[in-house]
Amino acid sequence: MRDPFVGIVKGVILSRSPSARIVDLSHGIPPQDLRAAALALRSAVDYFPENTLFVCVVDPGVGSQRRILWARSDRHQFLAPDNGLLSWAAALRPLKELREVRNRRLFLRGVGSTFHGRDRFAPVAAQLHEGLEPARLGPRVRSFARIPFPPVQRSGRALIGEILVVDHFGNAVTNLESSRLKGRRIRFAGRDLGPLRPSYSSVPRGSAVVVSGSLGLAELSVREGDFARDFAARVGDPVHA
Amino acid sequence: MRDPFVGIVKGVILSRSPSARIVDLSHGIPPQDLRAAALALRSAVDYFPENTLFVCVVDPGVGSQRRILWARSDRHQFLAPDNGLLSWAAALRPLKELREVRNRRLFLRGVGSTFHGRDRFAPVAAQLHEGLEPARLGPRVRSFARIPFPPVQRSGRALIGEILVVDHFGNAVTNLESSRLKGRRIRFAGRDLGPLRPSYSSVPRGSAVVVSGSLGLAELSVREGDFARDFAARVGDPVHA
Amino acid sequence: MRDPFVGIVKGVILSRSPSARIVDLSHGIPPQDLRAAALALRSAVDYFPENTLFVCVVDPGVGSQRRILWARSDRHQFLAPDNGLLSWAAALRPLKELREVRNRRLFLRGVGSTFHGRDRFAPVAAQLHEGLEPARLGPRVRSFARIPFPPVQRSGRALIGEILVVDHFGNAVTNLESSRLKGRRIRFAGRDLGPLRPSYSSVPRGSAVVVSGSLGLAELSVREGDFARDFAARVGDPVHA
Repeated sequence: MRDPFVGIVKGVILSRSPSARIVDLSHGIPPQDLRAAALALRSAVDYFPENTLFVCVVDPGVGSQRRILWARSDRHQFLAPDNGLLSWAAALRPLKELREVRNRRLFLRGVGSTFHGRDRFAPVAAQLHEGLEPARLGPRVRSFARIPFPPVQRSGRALIGEILVVDHFGNAVTNLESSRLKGRRIRFAGRDLGPLRPSYSSVPRGSAVVVSGSLGLAELSVREGDFARDFAARVGDPVHA
Repeated sequence: MRDPFVGIVKGVILSRSPSARIVDLSHGIPPQDLRAAALALRSAVDYFPENTLFVCVVDPGVGSQRRILWARSDRHQFLAPDNGLLSWAAALRPLKELREVRNRRLFLRGVGSTFHGRDRFAPVAAQLHEGLEPARLGPRVRSFARIPFPPVQRSGRALIGEILVVDHFGNAVTNLESSRLKGRRIRFAGRDLGPLRPSYSSVPRGSAVVVSGSLGLAELSVREGDFARDFAARVGDPVHA
Repeated sequence: MRDPFVGIVKGVILSRSPSARIVDLSHGIPPQDLRAAALALRSAVDYFPENTLFVCVVDPGVGSQRRILWARSDRHQFLAPDNGLLSWAAALRPLKELREVRNRRLFLRGVGSTFHGRDRFAPVAAQLHEGLEPARLGPRVRSFARIPFPPVQRSGRALIGEILVVDHFGNAVTNLESSRLKGRRIRFAGRDLGPLRPSYSSVPRGSAVVVSGSLGLAELSVREGDFARDFAARVGDPVHA
């Protein structure tokens, strides 16, 4: 957001599709963090209107031979680099049609070589919004890159999950589904965080608390504090339950 | 803004009220800072169109028993947790009707338990925009939580105010109304900052300057610099005039 | 964005021109960095719809006697302080008409003295969008403040450019046009960064790479890294080619 890139992408879309309604989903995904991008998309899809086109440009491979995909689920459409970003949303709502976006006549002949958001994603999105037939984007494809959702491990009766993403408030989102945590205590780095609680206010200020986050996954927090900082927690760290 | 939460709230609103016009007021209020939220709302209300609905989700008590309020002034509507956030705006334009938002049929049955912005505020806002009768939200209430606006103290002829909020540029907003500062010199931490000036450019670059801020309150600044950093100024620190 | 200032400016615009379509170009220009602002505007103008009005409020001289300008190129309109911010965009598309915005009846009588974005730029922008004749803004003027675009120096066959701006990802944008770099190797701080490459993926992760940035200017990067941090690069540093 510090740079004008996001605004420029919107300028391109509105130049070609003046009635497009654009909503920013997130511009703060760490530049190379495909897991954070995949999780953000998964958390969002079900809350957007039918036929929303999600334009996803977390794209460390920009300029390489990675493909650009167009995809459709039963409710939404997607434009995204073929880098796994779609995988976790697709696990929620399977993709019904996939195409490789290859028709260069739909692109801008932009200066420079590294700004596909402006020169490829934006004009294609605008033209789709104006009614372009998806068949004109390019050929159908059958497979797409996938990021495995880290599975929860079992050790005897215990569950071993991990931290998927740390959010802006310092909450650590885990891969442990809240619905599986009944009667269990959650432990992190050897410390007992107690059972899953109905809300932050179940514990005193400054105490650690595990709640069911916005995606139905257990989140490790400190009430009115910053869990990641206080517990030196990082993506990939194990969480026991 | 790093996380997709704000986008998701907008997705929910637009799913239910496609013509809603949404303006971001601020997503950078420090998570628990109700004074900053109350001041931001107070600075904004008079500049928005009649009938704007302000959706306020600075909500440290989310998930607890704190109520959600709907309120109406002579010009605007508000949805906010009952935590004092409305107090300073209400001092400017009194609230004429207050209701507790209690009708659970208006809420989303969201996964997880902690995202009232998505599951309660957004769908209620959308339905109000679509014409829902406020009476259907819940019963009228008479009182709401208030944060006292810190009063200016007097010591002989001197005024003793305090820093209310430090903004993004490092300017320190005080509770001293500019209109009361005629003929006075402002002092902070034992240093004389001079009288209230008409503009930053009244002093050389790098010098401290007191101007009338965007809310009619005196602000302590450094021209083309950062007052809070240079003077180690913090919210609550006294300011003498 | 942490403060409500941007939202308030939009509130003022929408109060007077409810159908205005507003796109945020950037709110992260360092407060006094007119070169970054001039470059952001130059990178953006060609990508926005015809008749877009660019409202530019990077304004270190706010409150001083600096003029507010309205300007028109063959495609767009601009409102900006007369501080050089328009210069690099104007080099791309010459300004055909310039006026000093002086008609105080178009301004808000805002509280405080330092928020021209709210009290002057926003209401004037809204009224222009509603069809106000530019002649009513104020008298025509002939000249405007210019920031020189730093010229590329020559030393024998070698080119000596400089870093114009460092972006959010740590990429260093130079004043060297990519089209002039064929057959040359780029050097920074005594280190050879290789020739201009077609994309980041031309080098291994963590290696320095020079690509043609979004403006057709050479950019110094580290693949999936941060050039400015790794090379201690700063605005104004020389770049050899």
